[in-house]
Amino acid sequence: MGPGRVDPAGPLSSATLCRMDISVIGGTGEEGFGLTLRLARAGHHAIIGSRSEEKGSTTAQKAVEILGGDAKVSGTTNELSAERGEVVFVTVPYAGQADIYRAIKDHVVAGKIVVDCTSPLATAVGGRAWHVIRPWHGSAAEAAKVLLDPGVRMVAAFHTISGEQLQDLERPMESDVFVCSSDKEAKATVGELIDQIPNLRWVDAGDLSMARIAETMTALLISVNRAYKIHDAGFRVTGRDVWGRPGV
Amino acid sequence: MGPGRVDPAGPLSSATLCRMDISVIGGTGEEGFGLTLRLARAGHHAIIGSRSEEKGSTTAQKAVEILGGDAKVSGTTNELSAERGEVVFVTVPYAGQADIYRAIKDHVVAGKIVVDCTSPLATAVGGRAWHVIRPWHGSAAEAAKVLLDPGVRMVAAFHTISGEQLQDLERPMESDVFVCSSDKEAKATVGELIDQIPNLRWVDAGDLSMARIAETMTALLISVNRAYKIHDAGFRVTGRDVWGRPGV
Repeated sequence: MGPGRVDPAGPLSSATLCRMDISVIGGTGEEGFGLTLRLARAGHHAIIGSRSEEKGSTTAQKAVEILGGDAKVSGTTNELSAERGEVVFVTVPYAGQADIYRAIKDHVVAGKIVVDCTSPLATAVGGRAWHVIRPWHGSAAEAAKVLLDPGVRMVAAFHTISGEQLQDLERPMESDVFVCSSDKEAKATVGELIDQIPNLRWVDAGDLSMARIAETMTALLISVNRAYKIHDAGFRVTGRDVWGRPGV
Repeated sequence: MGPGRVDPAGPLSSATLCRMDISVIGGTGEEGFGLTLRLARAGHHAIIGSRSEEKGSTTAQKAVEILGGDAKVSGTTNELSAERGEVVFVTVPYAGQADIYRAIKDHVVAGKIVVDCTSPLATAVGGRAWHVIRPWHGSAAEAAKVLLDPGVRMVAAFHTISGEQLQDLERPMESDVFVCSSDKEAKATVGELIDQIPNLRWVDAGDLSMARIAETMTALLISVNRAYKIHDAGFRVTGRDVWGRPGV
C-alpha cells in the first residue's frame, strides 16, 4: 500500500484519501495546470511551482475558482514547491528543463519521487513540434536524473496525455499514461495517483530508459493531430482490460 | 480512388475487389505470414517471398490450407516476389533488412509502392528486444529507401501490429496501424489495403521520417508485454472515432 489512501479497498472519496502535498513544477503551463486540477480534485494539496511566486499564486487562485472552495491549491516558487511536495511533478518545456532541475536540486532530497513529464520536442531549438531531438543521456528524464541527488526516485510519465484534456474536468480521459521507472515502488505510487483521476489508466512501460521511446510518442501524436486537424489524439493500450501494477 | 476496388462506394467483398498481386517479402516469418493470411483473405493474391524458393512455396501451401481452396497464395524467391507484386511488403528482421533490399533492388521499379515494416530492435546486434538501435538514416524505412530506385514510393507501417494477432483470423484486430509516408497517394493506397482487413484501422502518422518514432514503438510494446507477461499489447489511437485518410 502506497501513500495516498487510508483504506486501499475502500471507495475512492476525499473521506478515504490521505491528502498528499504534491508539487507541480511548471503548474502554470497547460499540462501542469491540467495536472494541478486533476490532483486537487482527487483530494490532494497541489502546490504550483513557478519561476514567479506571484504567477504561481494567481494560477492557484484560478484553480480554486474552477474547482470550488474545498479544493486545496497553492502557488509559490519552484524551489519552495519542490521542497514541500511529497511527490514532485515536473511539467516544463524541454528548453528550460535543465535550468529548472538545477534550481530545485537542493530542495529535492534523496527518497523523494520526481515525475518528469518532459518531451524533447525540437521546438526547444527552433524546430517542429512533431520532431524530437535526442538528449545526451538518452531521454529528458534520464538527463534530469543526473542533475538531482542520486537517491531521488525518478519516474517518467504523462508525455502522451494532452494538457487540454486534463483541464477539461467534465470529459472522461481516453488515453493511457505510460509510466517508466527503474524503481518499482515509486512507479506504483505514481500509478496510485493516476488511478485517482477518473478514467485514467496507467501502463507500466518498463524502466526509466524506456522514456527514450515514451517521450518521443508526444511528437507522433502531434503529427497525428496535424494530419487530422485535431488537438487531442492519444494512445489507449490494447491487449488487456486492466493495466496498472503488473501482477496485481 | 486507389487500386484494389472496382467500386469504392460498394460493400467490401471479393466480388467488388480487384484482386491485386501483393508481394510479402519475409512472408515465412510471423508478421509476414500473418499479413499474407489477411491480404489473401481480403481477396488478393499474396506472393510470399523467401530466400529459399522451396520454403516460400511450402509456406504458401500452409496458408492455402488455413484459408481454404479459394485463397490465392503463392511462394517464390524474394526477387521474383518483389518483381510480381504491385505493392511490396517487406517484413524482415532488421539484421537482414539491408541485404534483402539490395537483393530485390533491381526488381522494384520506379512507381512501385514498398511498405517497410521493419523495427530496428537491438536484437539485431545481440541486444534486447525492448531496446532499439538508431539507423544512420534516422529510421529503418529511410535506410531502405536509399537502397532502392529514388522513384520507388516508400511507406512505413505495421510496426505495432502483432504477427500473432494477424495470424489469428477469428480474432478481431484491436490495434491501429500507424502509416508514415511522404507520398500521400501511396499512403492512401496502403490504407485501403489495411481497411480491407476486418476491424483494422490506419492512422496517418505523417511523412516517412515519422517512422523514426513509429518503429521504436514496437520496442515499447515489447517492454509492456514483458511487464505484464502477455504477447500482444497494441495501441489504439483516441481522439476521433474514424481515422483513415485525413479529410475524408
